[in-house]
Amino acid sequence: MQRICFVLQVKKDRLEEYKERHKKVWPEMRDALRDTGWHNYSLFLRDDGMLVGYVETPDFQKALDGMAGLEVNARWQREMRDFFEDAQGRDADRQMAPLEPVFFLE
Amino acid sequence: MQRICFVLQVKKDRLEEYKERHKKVWPEMRDALRDTGWHNYSLFLRDDGMLVGYVETPDFQKALDGMAGLEVNARWQREMRDFFEDAQGRDADRQMAPLEPVFFLE
Repeated sequence: MQRICFVLQVKKDRLEEYKERHKKVWPEMRDALRDTGWHNYSLFLRDDGMLVGYVETPDFQKALDGMAGLEVNARWQREMRDFFEDAQGRDADRQMAPLEPVFFLE
Repeated sequence: MQRICFVLQVKKDRLEEYKERHKKVWPEMRDALRDTGWHNYSLFLRDDGMLVGYVETPDFQKALDGMAGLEVNARWQREMRDFFEDAQGRDADRQMAPLEPVFFLE
């Protein structure tokens, strides 16, 4: 099991809307995440828009690739695209670079 | 069970040493964390020194307070103090402000 942490940047003027949207993530999007290996998945938001993701998965690259192949994810990422800062215009799920794990306690 | 995420800033010129120290956290420090309710606790480091903590605990304030009362933690925090940026000179465990949870998938 890999424990993965990544950081993204939500636009400061879209924070409230971002939070609202994440209270009602489509059930088919939640199912897709579960089916592609996303477990114990949390998102946390700092008031300056820094978004931290934490997820447990057998293989993070597989989890990303699994989602990348699904129509429901394409639709979700399209709707989310304008919430994120990214100079290169990538969707959020293409920016999820894992941070280095430095400590773990069971 | 609360899922807590916090962010700290390690000094850029101390990253390697910080990582080394966290490969050999004292067993009595690990025991103290466990005994005061720190479970599934990970630390992740970005190459600019941003440190992300994720922990599951019945009550985060209790977990912080529990550690704050222990001699082993006072020793550990004293040794860690110079690794962290903090304008107010607080120990790392006094800077662990939880980020807002905005999404969760079991």
